Amino acid sequence: MNIAIYGYGNLGKGVEVALKNYNDITLFGIFTRRDKNSIKTITNAKVYNSSDLYLYKDKIDILIICAGSATELPNLSPTLAKDFNIIDSFDNHADILTHYKKINKSCIENNRIALISSGWDPGLLSLFRLYSKAVLPFSKIHTFWGKGISQGHSNAVKKIDGVLDCIQYTIPIKKSIYKARKDCNINLSNKQKHLRKCYVVAKNGANKAEICKKIKFMPNYFVDYNTIVKFVSQNTINKMRKNLPHGATLITSGNTGLYNENKHIIEYNLKLDSNPEFTGNILLASARALYKMKNKGETGCKTIFDLTPSDFLDLSKDEIIKKFL
Amino acid sequence: MNIAIYGYGNLGKGVEVALKNYNDITLFGIFTRRDKNSIKTITNAKVYNSSDLYLYKDKIDILIICAGSATELPNLSPTLAKDFNIIDSFDNHADILTHYKKINKSCIENNRIALISSGWDPGLLSLFRLYSKAVLPFSKIHTFWGKGISQGHSNAVKKIDGVLDCIQYTIPIKKSIYKARKDCNINLSNKQKHLRKCYVVAKNGANKAEICKKIKFMPNYFVDYNTIVKFVSQNTINKMRKNLPHGATLITSGNTGLYNENKHIIEYNLKLDSNPEFTGNILLASARALYKMKNKGETGCKTIFDLTPSDFLDLSKDEIIKKFL
Repeated sequence: MNIAIYGYGNLGKGVEVALKNYNDITLFGIFTRRDKNSIKTITNAKVYNSSDLYLYKDKIDILIICAGSATELPNLSPTLAKDFNIIDSFDNHADILTHYKKINKSCIENNRIALISSGWDPGLLSLFRLYSKAVLPFSKIHTFWGKGISQGHSNAVKKIDGVLDCIQYTIPIKKSIYKARKDCNINLSNKQKHLRKCYVVAKNGANKAEICKKIKFMPNYFVDYNTIVKFVSQNTINKMRKNLPHGATLITSGNTGLYNENKHIIEYNLKLDSNPEFTGNILLASARALYKMKNKGETGCKTIFDLTPSDFLDLSKDEIIKKFL
Repeated sequence: MNIAIYGYGNLGKGVEVALKNYNDITLFGIFTRRDKNSIKTITNAKVYNSSDLYLYKDKIDILIICAGSATELPNLSPTLAKDFNIIDSFDNHADILTHYKKINKSCIENNRIALISSGWDPGLLSLFRLYSKAVLPFSKIHTFWGKGISQGHSNAVKKIDGVLDCIQYTIPIKKSIYKARKDCNINLSNKQKHLRKCYVVAKNGANKAEICKKIKFMPNYFVDYNTIVKFVSQNTINKMRKNLPHGATLITSGNTGLYNENKHIIEYNLKLDSNPEFTGNILLASARALYKMKNKGETGCKTIFDLTPSDFLDLSKDEIIKKFL
């Protein structure tokens, strides 16, 4: 199977590097919206200008779109889904259903298949939320993110007028993690669970108070959180950017028994040194599963909930039973 | 959808109690191999003699077989799969593939569907092993069981002269859990990962030091493990037996990056107050998913790896996207 990468930022690089772990997947090339001659790839992968993408329509089985959720994917994905089988990692939770419907229309009209919101959240953690709820129907699920950089949130800040650069750390509040384990029915708002810390480089002469206000009141991204904004130099940010760690804790607690007398806790932890590389791995594993679904004749927009677990591996049914069951 | 329970031990009771959490599933009845008049069910469910099972063939959509893996399921499941859509929780890892092939033959020849080895291990943990390996192909997966009761080890102790009763808990060793998190490539045997704790009721006047020695040096069962022996009253054991707690920790650590410089840890924890009730919930959630697969026209023997995640919930695609993605 041949994939192509559309967009060569951190995530695009993550997918490029991840390819060495997935021998059944071949990279056709990387499509950039910048000048292709300005790009030096990590693995010497071939680079094309994005304007030439349609020339290679028949050579690409799946196009992995590595672009921002705030402003790019809402238009890019539905458009590209008309001519390609696409995967994106759209992560604006509140708008996923709208995004899904637009892409599903593109797919159905053009006999294509797509997978949206793949990655670790949305993605892997979404799957674990679903399974946890299925096996503990009367339960509460708490998701804690971090400590780590949220690319989506960092990008959202970077779009603000007067902002040159930004790194946003999401930090889970430990006291709330303990509370979630202890009390099945506790309500914890996002604000009670996380702190958002933005390191921002402002343009010379920019109105910092205005930037600060725009960040803190940004819908979906920041308005519901305690947000700390700190202005720093480009040099400081560059040092921070060398590592892109992240993590998450997902806690589901619920009861069973005739009188709800028995308590069960399902907890799931991720600790990642490199968010984009781990996401790259997930994108390739799910590309493999989507490709198998496409080969069974399926079309339309899919989510990770529609993919068959065994299709994530490049192994026979017997081998999977022997090794994993 | 109508299910029936075949076998009314701890697991059968677990499924019966779990039904209150799954409103779309109706219990037709419980089939026992004992005299039906000797059975008092927890929820006043109707009891039938197992010899009458075939009379109700057309009233049962899925038959959940709650019997032992050692001697019962290897014959029961392939036989019953000829006339019923069955689910079992066969847990003898080494024989699962053989079990699968026998049942698949029954299903294919009789146009039936079956799900084997559902529960939490094999089952839920198997799924997480698969997903972990898919997203971290170069990784090691360590499974730690407990704290929970091992029936085989409890019985072995009961055979010692002077012992009236025993409960043996398998307990994961914390130091080994830390090691698994720290070193992606570490090898750990089951013996390095678990310690065994025996709660023993001794006969009046029995030589406790002698019993202790006999347990700790028992070949196969205890001699290679760190074993703790504690003498308690029959009353204490009876109380312990009321709850059947269990748990597990699954650690996957692997690297990514051009030079494998980035490390990732996926960790999964279960803490269960009641092993049979939690297993009962999983059996019903997977019965729901299997029933949907059957209604799409599928036949043959399946594992949890074949079930579509979204089919585990009784919700529409839109609702699932909104609530879980």
